[in-house]
Amino acid sequence: MKHIAIGQSGGPTAVINATLAGFVRTLYKDHQLTFIRNGYEGLAEDVFFEGTKEMISGVLDHERVPGACLGAGRYGFTREKVKQSVKNLRSRGVQTLVFMGGNGTMEALHDIQQEADQQHYPLQVIGLPKTVDNDLAGTDHAPGFGSAAKYAAMAARDMSRDLQAMNNFEQVRILETMGRNAGWLAATSGFFNEYPEDGPHVISLPECPMKPQVLVQQTESALETYGSALIVVSEGSAWSGDEQVEKEIVNGRPVLGGVSREVEELLKENLGVMVRSELLGMNQRSFSPAVSTVDLKEAIQTGETGAEWVLEERSGVMASLKRISTSPYRVSFTPVWLEAVEQSGERKLPSKFINDQDAFRDWLRPLLGEGLEMYPPPFQRRDHHVIRQNQPKQK
Amino acid sequence: MKHIAIGQSGGPTAVINATLAGFVRTLYKDHQLTFIRNGYEGLAEDVFFEGTKEMISGVLDHERVPGACLGAGRYGFTREKVKQSVKNLRSRGVQTLVFMGGNGTMEALHDIQQEADQQHYPLQVIGLPKTVDNDLAGTDHAPGFGSAAKYAAMAARDMSRDLQAMNNFEQVRILETMGRNAGWLAATSGFFNEYPEDGPHVISLPECPMKPQVLVQQTESALETYGSALIVVSEGSAWSGDEQVEKEIVNGRPVLGGVSREVEELLKENLGVMVRSELLGMNQRSFSPAVSTVDLKEAIQTGETGAEWVLEERSGVMASLKRISTSPYRVSFTPVWLEAVEQSGERKLPSKFINDQDAFRDWLRPLLGEGLEMYPPPFQRRDHHVIRQNQPKQK
Repeated sequence: MKHIAIGQSGGPTAVINATLAGFVRTLYKDHQLTFIRNGYEGLAEDVFFEGTKEMISGVLDHERVPGACLGAGRYGFTREKVKQSVKNLRSRGVQTLVFMGGNGTMEALHDIQQEADQQHYPLQVIGLPKTVDNDLAGTDHAPGFGSAAKYAAMAARDMSRDLQAMNNFEQVRILETMGRNAGWLAATSGFFNEYPEDGPHVISLPECPMKPQVLVQQTESALETYGSALIVVSEGSAWSGDEQVEKEIVNGRPVLGGVSREVEELLKENLGVMVRSELLGMNQRSFSPAVSTVDLKEAIQTGETGAEWVLEERSGVMASLKRISTSPYRVSFTPVWLEAVEQSGERKLPSKFINDQDAFRDWLRPLLGEGLEMYPPPFQRRDHHVIRQNQPKQK
Repeated sequence: MKHIAIGQSGGPTAVINATLAGFVRTLYKDHQLTFIRNGYEGLAEDVFFEGTKEMISGVLDHERVPGACLGAGRYGFTREKVKQSVKNLRSRGVQTLVFMGGNGTMEALHDIQQEADQQHYPLQVIGLPKTVDNDLAGTDHAPGFGSAAKYAAMAARDMSRDLQAMNNFEQVRILETMGRNAGWLAATSGFFNEYPEDGPHVISLPECPMKPQVLVQQTESALETYGSALIVVSEGSAWSGDEQVEKEIVNGRPVLGGVSREVEELLKENLGVMVRSELLGMNQRSFSPAVSTVDLKEAIQTGETGAEWVLEERSGVMASLKRISTSPYRVSFTPVWLEAVEQSGERKLPSKFINDQDAFRDWLRPLLGEGLEMYPPPFQRRDHHVIRQNQPKQK
C-alpha cells in the first residue's frame, strides 16, 4: 500500500476533475490518498485534505464538473518553497506525488523531485498533463484542449450566423480566444469555415505579429464581399514591432487582455463602421455543454494511466499522449521526462498548420468528439452594403 | 391559395429560424411564400427572396441554425417607410404579412396594418413573438428566452466552479448578461445556486438601481465568507441616480455596454483585490449546444400556430404563449392584439420574482428543458483568505 499525494495546478479546465477521478478510482481501494489544496500553494503551506471516504466519494462525483475541485491556481514557487514542500511531504510519510497541470506544473514537479533526491528521500513523482490552449510541450495534445477547441469552434460558427443576420447594424465582430503564447485555440475557430461568408475572415495568432494595415485591408475586403467580417484574435497576439498588451501582473504572471479592444479601435478608426469586440472568456475552459466526448474520455484515461504507472514504479515522467494515427484516430500514452517537457518551452502552432487550414482541421477533428454538424449554406446576399458611420481615416 | 410575405426582425436568437421553419413547413405546399430580406429594411426597400423550391428547402434546413437566415436587424421605421412598405406589398399582390420579432417588430406591424386599412388594402397581419431577454409584453415568455436563460444559468454555474478553483489568484469575477431594460436573464444566472459558495453572490438588475457601497459590502462579505465572489450584472443596470452607461447610438437605438467594467473599477478600488469582468456576449443568443429542448419545440410550435391562424383568417394579433400551469408544465397559444403589446411597453422582472428566487426558479425550470443536473457540493474551504493587492480605499 502506497501513500500518494495528489494536486491540481495552473488554470482549471472542463476536464481536469475527470483526470483526478480516473486516477482516484483506480487506486483508492488499496492505497492511502491525500489531496493537496490549491496546487503548489497548498503543498508549500501544508494544506491538505485527508482522503476520507467522503472526500473520495466527493472527488468521484466531480468527474464531470469543471473547475478544479481541489483548488488549483498560480503560485510563485521559490527555492525555499520547494524545500518546504518536500519537508511537508516527508513529514507526512508521502511516497508518491502526482500533479495535474501544464508547463509550470511539470517544471515545479521536477524541482521537487531534484530536491527530494538531494535529501535522499525516495519520492516517486508523476505528472499528468492538462492544458487549455495546447501550449504544453512533449505531448500531441493534452486534456482540456479538445473541449476548449470545441467551444471556440462552435462559438465562431454560431456567432458568425448571428452576425450575418445583423448586417444592417453590426458589421465587424472581433472575438478574442485564450492563447497567451500559442495560437492553437484561435486557429480552431476556423474549423467550421465551410462557406466564405461565415469566416472567420481573419485569424490572428501570437506566432504571427499583426500588421495594422494588412488587418484593415483584409477586413475591408471581407466587408465589401460579404457585408460583414468576423475577426478572431488570440489573447497573446501582438502588433508587429510591439510588445503584447499587458493589463496587470499577478503572482509573477502577466494577465493578458485587451488586444481585441485595440483591434476594435483600429478598425473603427480606419473603416468608419460599427465594430464590436468580445472575449470568448472563461467559458472556453469551463462550459460543460461544449465538452468534447473524446477530451473527456482521454482525461479519464490520463488519470487511469497515471495510476497504473504509480504501481509500475515509474518516476520523473509525464504521461504524454502520443498520436499513432489521425484517421482512424489512435493514441497511446508514453512517458516523457519532466526535464524534457521543461526544456521544450511553450509549444507554438507549427507552420504546417498555420499555412494549411485543411491540414489543421484534419489534425483537430478527432479531438472535438461528436456533434460536429455542418450548417446549410447561408443565403446568397446580393444586396449588402457597407454602412459608414463616420469618415474613415485617409489612406 | 394565399400570397404570404414573411420576415424576421430585431436581434436574432438561437431559435427564430425554427419558428420560420415551423411556419413554412405548414404552408409551403399550398400557398405562395415570399421572404423579406433584413426585416423592415428589406420591406421598405423592396428586397425580397422569392419562395422558390431551393429557398423553401434552404429555410427548412435552417431550423436548428442560430442567427436569422432571412437577415433581421434594426431599422428606423418612419411614417414614410411604413407607406412605402405597404406600397411594396400591395404591388406584389401580398395578402398576408407575418413578422417574427419583439416589441419593436409588433409596433411596426401594427403601423403597417393601420396604413393598409387607410388604403383600403385588406392585408392580413400576424406577429410571431421572439425575445432574448424576455422583455416582450403580452406573453408569458417567448421563443429565444429559454435558450438564452439556459446559457446564462449554465455559464454562471460552470464559471463559478472555475472561479473557486482559482481563489488564490482571481477573487472577484463579474459577468454581464443581456437585458437592456429587464433583468430576466441576469436573474436566471441564479438558477443553479444550490450552495452558497457558488453564488452568484450579487445579481444586479435594471429594475433595481445599484448603490455602490452596498455592492462593495456584499462583495466583501462573500469574499470573506467564501474566498471568492461571483457578481452578475445586467447590461442595462444603472447606478442609483445616474443614467445607463451608453456606448454609442446606432439606428436610433443605444448600444449598451460597459456596466461590468464600471463595477470592476469600483470593486478594485474599494477592495484592493484582483477583479475580472466579462460579457457573456453574443453566445447568449446563438450558442447552439445550450439550446433548450423546450424553447426549440415552442419556437417551432409558434411558427405552426401562426400558419394555422393565417388559414383561420385571424389578423392584427400576436401569437402569445399563455402558461396554463407550471407543474405539470402546460402552455397554449392565445391571440393578443398588436396594440395591446405596444401599450404594455417593455416587460420587467416582477417583484414577486425579484424578491423570491425560489419562486422564479420554479417558474423558469420548465423553460430550460433537459440537462439540468446539479453538481455535487464544492469542498469546504477552511483556509481561504482575501489577497489585497493594493490598499483598499478608506471607508
